[in-house]
Amino acid sequence: MQYYTDTDMGLDFRQVNLAVESAFADHGRGLVQMPPKVYVTLPYGDFRTMPAYLPSLAIAGVKIVNVHPDNPAKGYPTVMALTVILDIETGRPTAVINATRLTDMRTGAAGAVAGKYLSARKEIVLGVIGTGRQAQAQVSAISRELSIRQIKIWGRKPEHIRRFADRFMDFPCRESSIEDTCDCDVLVTTTPSRTPIIRSEWIHEGTHINAIGADAPGKEELDPALLRRAQVFVDDPVQAIHSGEVNVPISQGMYRAADIAGTLGEVVIGTKKRAGPDTITIFDSTGLAIQDLAIAKIAMQHGKIIDLPFP
Amino acid sequence: MQYYTDTDMGLDFRQVNLAVESAFADHGRGLVQMPPKVYVTLPYGDFRTMPAYLPSLAIAGVKIVNVHPDNPAKGYPTVMALTVILDIETGRPTAVINATRLTDMRTGAAGAVAGKYLSARKEIVLGVIGTGRQAQAQVSAISRELSIRQIKIWGRKPEHIRRFADRFMDFPCRESSIEDTCDCDVLVTTTPSRTPIIRSEWIHEGTHINAIGADAPGKEELDPALLRRAQVFVDDPVQAIHSGEVNVPISQGMYRAADIAGTLGEVVIGTKKRAGPDTITIFDSTGLAIQDLAIAKIAMQHGKIIDLPFP
Repeated sequence: MQYYTDTDMGLDFRQVNLAVESAFADHGRGLVQMPPKVYVTLPYGDFRTMPAYLPSLAIAGVKIVNVHPDNPAKGYPTVMALTVILDIETGRPTAVINATRLTDMRTGAAGAVAGKYLSARKEIVLGVIGTGRQAQAQVSAISRELSIRQIKIWGRKPEHIRRFADRFMDFPCRESSIEDTCDCDVLVTTTPSRTPIIRSEWIHEGTHINAIGADAPGKEELDPALLRRAQVFVDDPVQAIHSGEVNVPISQGMYRAADIAGTLGEVVIGTKKRAGPDTITIFDSTGLAIQDLAIAKIAMQHGKIIDLPFP
Repeated sequence: MQYYTDTDMGLDFRQVNLAVESAFADHGRGLVQMPPKVYVTLPYGDFRTMPAYLPSLAIAGVKIVNVHPDNPAKGYPTVMALTVILDIETGRPTAVINATRLTDMRTGAAGAVAGKYLSARKEIVLGVIGTGRQAQAQVSAISRELSIRQIKIWGRKPEHIRRFADRFMDFPCRESSIEDTCDCDVLVTTTPSRTPIIRSEWIHEGTHINAIGADAPGKEELDPALLRRAQVFVDDPVQAIHSGEVNVPISQGMYRAADIAGTLGEVVIGTKKRAGPDTITIFDSTGLAIQDLAIAKIAMQHGKIIDLPFP
């Protein structure tokens, strides 16, 4: 058994996007085993357990990931993750992977795949709501699939916006109001909000939205009226209804699960698509265990290794 | 983060039994978080993911365990396990534990707790069906709670029976027919059978049975008529109905979930008990994630440690 640390070293988003796209295609074809993620609540946050088996990559395993919003004050990241890989022939654990930064990357990659297939344009103005690790991962990943003419960024803390802009100096990047940020071709929302912060009237026709922030029951970023105007694609219906952007509107009767347009996997394999150039499309991302396995497969070619005795 | 290897070194079953009994008591009182274990099927077996949070021990984590019956021919154990422990304050992974032998011990300990509370006698003839690692763990664990006058052992392979008898030379131990082995005070069944091998008429009144072998859909060891004669206690109702001894009879309409007498946790805290000295009692064990956390807590005081960088 081997422990992999610093596993994002040397990973290129182009390769990660491709691997994640392939995993979504397998999901769309029904070729994966992936029970819905399981939540356990701790005193100051929660952790999620995400098992899966991806036959096309001959990889199986479990990602374990926490979400603790108060962690930064304690000197730890909000989200930390570990992935355990099992040999598919014998079930023997073969690897334990530090998956904290991989989790950022694989979520960014899902957004990039959604943007590639669902954006109405290839040259885009990218609106970004939030300035944290996931906002940065979305921009990095999307930049490999779409040509970014301009980035509009909105966040609560000026110093975080400056840091964000410094990181993406290759693109014209300017701080905007939340309303003006929504005036874009592709919008990415990455906040931990529990009330809608994006009003429906701010979004013009033809916009594609990656709704990333909502990943637990009670979280939502978008006005439910916006969901009803749009084609909503989810990564996985069971997970999305439980904990995605649609979870609160569905539980309050303001959106119907039956109105979900399809999955990103179905979009990738071509059985579902954007209805027309003026349609508003939304990708509701909760995060799939198969994304974690796809990136683990790549990461195991790069990370520093520590050998561990097992059994 | 630390990796613990050889974690059963120095563990005493008396201590393990006590910790597991305490975990069952917490379960009986509704003081634990433990979603049902999740199964993923691999080409030659399966793996189970078992998250839990046990507030009384301030421990949370996930056990990942496979079952691959053809592994011994490939040089690996049938069952191998790894437990990941998370800090309950921050969700940070703090330990990865080699839990293969711990899994044997914590299952043995559950059988010992069941025997302690449900056996009609304190001095017993112990019948053992099967000769593998779990049969041995059951005997070792039960011997700490009940006084074993004699062991009757039945298995398919004479060399395995000899090895078993050599291990337990402190007890009068004799090979018996399967029918005669069932003539005992406490019977332990530990086979991977998919058809009933224990006939109801072989079991006399007052016997207690630990039904250990059935731990996946389709597995069963006991005649359903025997279940209907007995008080059946389970470790966890959802898991037992899905994958315990009762799973096949319930799915075939030969036993009713409503007839389950209660949980071992309820027995430990005294809200349920053996109806009378002549009752046949059955403990249907599927294995709980809280047992894994309870033994992990002890094991982390003993195992060899390898420091791992995280995050």
